[in-house]
Amino acid sequence: MEVNPWEVKGDVDYNKLIKEFGTKKITDELYKQIIDATGEDNVMLRRKFFFSHRDLDLVLKEHKQGKKFFLYTGRGPSGPMHIGHIIPFVFTKWLQDMFDVNLYIQITDDEKLFVKRDKTKDEIDKWSYENIKDIAAIGFNPDKTFIFRDSEYIKNMYPLIIEVARRVTFSTAKAVFGFTNETNIGLIFYPAIQIAPTLFEKNKRALIPSAIDQDPYWRIQRDLAEKLGGKKAAAIHSKFIPPLAGVNGKMSSSDPNSAIWLTDDEKTVRKKIMKYAFSGGQPTVEEHRKLGGNPDVDVSFQWLNIFFEPDDKKLGKIRDDYKSGKLLTGELKQITVDKINEFLMKHRKKREKADIKRYMYSGKLAERMWNKLIE
Amino acid sequence: MEVNPWEVKGDVDYNKLIKEFGTKKITDELYKQIIDATGEDNVMLRRKFFFSHRDLDLVLKEHKQGKKFFLYTGRGPSGPMHIGHIIPFVFTKWLQDMFDVNLYIQITDDEKLFVKRDKTKDEIDKWSYENIKDIAAIGFNPDKTFIFRDSEYIKNMYPLIIEVARRVTFSTAKAVFGFTNETNIGLIFYPAIQIAPTLFEKNKRALIPSAIDQDPYWRIQRDLAEKLGGKKAAAIHSKFIPPLAGVNGKMSSSDPNSAIWLTDDEKTVRKKIMKYAFSGGQPTVEEHRKLGGNPDVDVSFQWLNIFFEPDDKKLGKIRDDYKSGKLLTGELKQITVDKINEFLMKHRKKREKADIKRYMYSGKLAERMWNKLIE
Repeated sequence: MEVNPWEVKGDVDYNKLIKEFGTKKITDELYKQIIDATGEDNVMLRRKFFFSHRDLDLVLKEHKQGKKFFLYTGRGPSGPMHIGHIIPFVFTKWLQDMFDVNLYIQITDDEKLFVKRDKTKDEIDKWSYENIKDIAAIGFNPDKTFIFRDSEYIKNMYPLIIEVARRVTFSTAKAVFGFTNETNIGLIFYPAIQIAPTLFEKNKRALIPSAIDQDPYWRIQRDLAEKLGGKKAAAIHSKFIPPLAGVNGKMSSSDPNSAIWLTDDEKTVRKKIMKYAFSGGQPTVEEHRKLGGNPDVDVSFQWLNIFFEPDDKKLGKIRDDYKSGKLLTGELKQITVDKINEFLMKHRKKREKADIKRYMYSGKLAERMWNKLIE
Repeated sequence: MEVNPWEVKGDVDYNKLIKEFGTKKITDELYKQIIDATGEDNVMLRRKFFFSHRDLDLVLKEHKQGKKFFLYTGRGPSGPMHIGHIIPFVFTKWLQDMFDVNLYIQITDDEKLFVKRDKTKDEIDKWSYENIKDIAAIGFNPDKTFIFRDSEYIKNMYPLIIEVARRVTFSTAKAVFGFTNETNIGLIFYPAIQIAPTLFEKNKRALIPSAIDQDPYWRIQRDLAEKLGGKKAAAIHSKFIPPLAGVNGKMSSSDPNSAIWLTDDEKTVRKKIMKYAFSGGQPTVEEHRKLGGNPDVDVSFQWLNIFFEPDDKKLGKIRDDYKSGKLLTGELKQITVDKINEFLMKHRKKREKADIKRYMYSGKLAERMWNKLIE
C-alpha cells in the first residue's frame, strides 16, 4: 500500500493509514457530537466514508464556545471531474450549511503543471474553468465562499507562502512526501502553496475536508501554524471512492473506464456500470439465486452505501436481498445507474446556472480576499 | 575558495573561477570588439573589473546583424547598499546607453526572506524601497527600464516561473548551488524566479551584467532556455569590489566597517578609509620613502583602479609615485576619499530626485510589463 497526494497504490487499509499518518478515527461518540452540533444527520459520516480526523473534536468544542472556524478544500484541475471528485464537495457544502462558515477552495493549477510534465498551461487553464463550473454547481454560499486559482491569486498570498516556505526544509518535505533528487523544484516548493490557505484567517482554525491522501500537508502545517501566529489546522478525512474495477484503490483520472465522469450521459453511465462495475454476484443467475452476492466487494453497492442511497432502510433491504440472491447483479446495477443519472442530471442543470464569477471575484468573501495582501 | 550566490569565502582566484564555472575570459580582442561596437571606452572593461563572460561575442555579432538583445540584472534588498553594490549598476547604465536596449532590474525580496531567516517582511520591504531609490538614481532610461519587486510582480511572471521550475530537478539545483537537506523549500524553488526574467523577451537574448557569483543561475538557464522557446542568456561577469580590510573577498554587508555605504557622510568616508582601508604602504614614513608601497594589495588604490580614477595617465602616476615611495599612504587615501565623496555627493542629489514610480509602474516598458502575463 502506498498513499500520498500523487499516488494511491495497492490495497488501501484505512485503519493502517490512521496509524501511519497519526490521525484519529471518527468514533461513534464523535459522530454523535457532530450530529448534536449540527442537528442533522449526514450519510457520509453515518456510513463512515468520512472516517478519520485531526482535532475535529476541538473544532466542535470551540464552536460550542462561540469560536468560529473556516473550511478549506481544493481541487487539482488536470482533467474532467468524476463522481469521486465531486462527492467530497457535497460534504463540504453540508458542513458550510450546518456551521455557516467561510469556505476557501483552492484550484491548484500550478501543482498540476509541476506534477504533470506533459500538460500545457492551456490545458490546465481549460480544466480549471471546467472544474470550477462543476464545483460552483454544488451551491456553496456565494458570499462566504472564495474559489481561487493559485496562478491567479499568487500575488495576494505570496507573503504568507514565503513565511511558510522559509520554515520547511527539504529534509522535512522529503520525509513527508517522499520527494527524491529527481523531483522538480516546483513540486518541492508546492507544499508551501497548499499550506498557505490554512492560515488565511489566523484567528480561526481551518477545518479541512479532504481525502486522507492530502493529510501529509496538514502534518507540516500543524508543526508551523503557531510559529506563524495561526492555529493548527483540523482535518476530516474521507476514504477514496472505489473505482469501477474494484472496491480497492482510488477512482483514477487516467483510465476513462474506471470512473463515471460528470459529463457522462445516461446511456454511458448505464453502459459503464453494466460492463465495468466490479460485481459481488455469482457467474450465473442460477448460482446467484442459490448462493447470493457479496455486497462488500460490489462496487455498485459500495457507491449506494457511500452516497447514493442515504436511506438506511432501503440500503439494508438492498444488502439483504443481494446477499440472499433475491436481487440480481443486473438489478442492483440498475438501481445504482438510476441514482447516478438522477444526480448527474440535477448536477448539470445546476452547473449551467452556476455563477462562477461570484465565487471567484464578486461575492462578499471573494471581494474581501482580492483586496487584501495575506501575510 | 568558495563562491556561490550566497557566500564568497577565502582568496578568490578569478582565473580558477573561469575554469570552474566554465565561462570565458574577456580577451583584449573581445574588449576591442566592444569598444568598436559602442564607439566609447569604459574604465571597468579596460581595467578588467568585468573580466569574464558567456556569449558576449555572440551578442555583439548579433547586434551587428541588427538583432536586439536586452539587459537584466538585480539586487537582493536585505540592507543598505554600499559602493560595491552600486558600481555594477553604473556599468549596466553604460551598456544601456551604448546599445539603447531594454533593462529589467529584479529586486529579489522573496530570496532575501528565504536566505535570511532572521529578517522580517517589513525590514525587507523597507530596504527594497531604499535600494530602488539608489538604483533609480543611476539614471537609467525611464521608458526602457523596468524595476520590479518579485513579491509584487510574481503574478505576471508566475506562468513562466512554473515552466522553468517544472524542468529543474532537485538534483540539478543541488549540484549547481550546493543545496543540502537543510535548505528550505523556498530557496530551492528560488532559482526558477531568478531565471524567469532571462526569458521576458523570448525573441531576444538576455545579456546579464553581474558579479561572477551569480553565474550558477545562468548555467541552469542555458540548459533550459531553448526548450522554453527562448535564447540562452549571455553574461558579463565582474570581480568583487574588495572590502576595506583587504583586496581579497567581497565587500560584506554584515560588517559595517568593511564597506562604504551610499549614506556615509564625508567625515565617515574619510574616517573609514583612513582607519580601515588595508594599505600597501610601509609601517613608517621613513621606510615608505625608502622602500615604497605595494599598490596591488592596497585597497584605496584598487578602488581607484576599478572605478574612481578612470584616467589612465593619472592612475599610472599614482601607481608609480606610490611604488617609489613618493606618494605616502595617507596621501593616496586622501585621493580616494575625495573621489568617493564626490561620487556620493552626486549620487545623493540624483537619489533625491529619482522618480522610482516611473521605473516601477508608469514608464513605457514598466507599463507594458504590468499589462502582460508572461508565459
